[in-house]
Amino acid sequence: METVSKAKSHGGVQGVYRHASKVTGTPMTFAVFVPPQASSGPVPVLWYLSGLTCTHANVMEKGEYRAAAARHGVIIVAPDTSPRGEEMPDEPDNWQFGSGAGFYLDATREPYAANYRMYSYIVDELTALIAAEFPADMKRQGIFGHSMGGHGALTIALKHPDRFASCSAFAPIVQSSTADWSRPALEKYLGADEIAWRTYDAVALIEDGKRFPEFLVDQGAADPFLKTGLRPELLADACKAAGIPLTLNLRDGYDHSYYFISTFMADHIAWHAKRLGL
Amino acid sequence: METVSKAKSHGGVQGVYRHASKVTGTPMTFAVFVPPQASSGPVPVLWYLSGLTCTHANVMEKGEYRAAAARHGVIIVAPDTSPRGEEMPDEPDNWQFGSGAGFYLDATREPYAANYRMYSYIVDELTALIAAEFPADMKRQGIFGHSMGGHGALTIALKHPDRFASCSAFAPIVQSSTADWSRPALEKYLGADEIAWRTYDAVALIEDGKRFPEFLVDQGAADPFLKTGLRPELLADACKAAGIPLTLNLRDGYDHSYYFISTFMADHIAWHAKRLGL
Repeated sequence: METVSKAKSHGGVQGVYRHASKVTGTPMTFAVFVPPQASSGPVPVLWYLSGLTCTHANVMEKGEYRAAAARHGVIIVAPDTSPRGEEMPDEPDNWQFGSGAGFYLDATREPYAANYRMYSYIVDELTALIAAEFPADMKRQGIFGHSMGGHGALTIALKHPDRFASCSAFAPIVQSSTADWSRPALEKYLGADEIAWRTYDAVALIEDGKRFPEFLVDQGAADPFLKTGLRPELLADACKAAGIPLTLNLRDGYDHSYYFISTFMADHIAWHAKRLGL
Repeated sequence: METVSKAKSHGGVQGVYRHASKVTGTPMTFAVFVPPQASSGPVPVLWYLSGLTCTHANVMEKGEYRAAAARHGVIIVAPDTSPRGEEMPDEPDNWQFGSGAGFYLDATREPYAANYRMYSYIVDELTALIAAEFPADMKRQGIFGHSMGGHGALTIALKHPDRFASCSAFAPIVQSSTADWSRPALEKYLGADEIAWRTYDAVALIEDGKRFPEFLVDQGAADPFLKTGLRPELLADACKAAGIPLTLNLRDGYDHSYYFISTFMADHIAWHAKRLGL
């Protein structure tokens, strides 16, 4: 693991790191904020998964998470959203597929299966790296994310309820197999048989029996993607049918941007902190 | 004035605006955050002047000012740092001069005198525009900034103590006429006679009799420019000799970046708010 940059911020250290990923077959970059409390021993880890077109840098620069993370004493890990590189199979003009659009799944179709494996990258390889390289208490992990990253957080949490104590999302894609901006990607990554898509679809996972203790979701009411790509009511229906408590805050006037996310970032971190025993 | 973008954030509105400046002879872009309190009537204005290479966008994206501005109820105005455009006289490979490096002065030398007039742009033209277009209580104004923008805030405040109730800075250039990264620019903008530089030099303005009620300065102790370009001890000496109270916080481990600025942003806004009657 190579250190790209490090800077003191809000009493902790915001770093950017790079490593050669065996899972994706590419160099991968990620951001980690270590709060000041870590100097006294391991602290809980909160994973933030980003949305379409983002790298590790968007939330690091615009997310305004460091003040709250330093207040509560939690590590924030922000991975990239896909493998990258000139040799990657990609559709450069399509922002909803390929580079910046890994959808937190393991592709099974060629030519994507060798590299587009963000699910295993995060759940296995990067998790092991964080455990090895940072003062992280891996017994206390939470996960959240935005949009495509909200989809990632919900689906990963539903598949690992023993690992994650908390899961929340900002404007998540809740039913990836039917949303405008994910259907074409799922087909290319996973093939035409939609049964295979259900393990990367939060609503379908709940319908198929997966459970999680509770979710927190914030959604801007002025989000232009609300009715086509996001549709939080589908998650509300699935949670209600499954008996999963869901706090769904529809926020009047807010859009899909980091101006929205940063507004409610401190609320989400406080919510996770409580569930992580902080 | 044209609205480039508007987004709800932290209960207020973060906007970006463009107008044709008569002072610089170019289109100028600036950012304004209007806090929620403005819906009940005019609120104080806090000007943030940015550093070398920045536009209005750096602090808007990385400064983390909206939470505190919304808490206290203050408008934040973030101007650009120079006129811009292909037709501008510039040194494209020199980040310390020309585009992104207006130094908050009115150039008197050709070919810069017609456009590089950021002092008058901010003090006269943009001030009038803010007063006309936003719910701003112009009787209550404060000013702060970073690096070159700290220089801008200090020098403008010293020349307008009746207009500004408060002035602070992050890692300011305190003596522009002797600092490595401003001397060459001052010579090109203002000519070789260094007497003319003194009205754009905070320490010189104090030496020459200008006064301000008090200053707050935060400075990273790990700032790579500390000993060459910044030298806060020169401001401390000048303030001491002049009887100007200066709170100078040297912050262990912090560098010159927005990771530093954002850490102390809420402190500065609270400090201004108190002096703006909030």
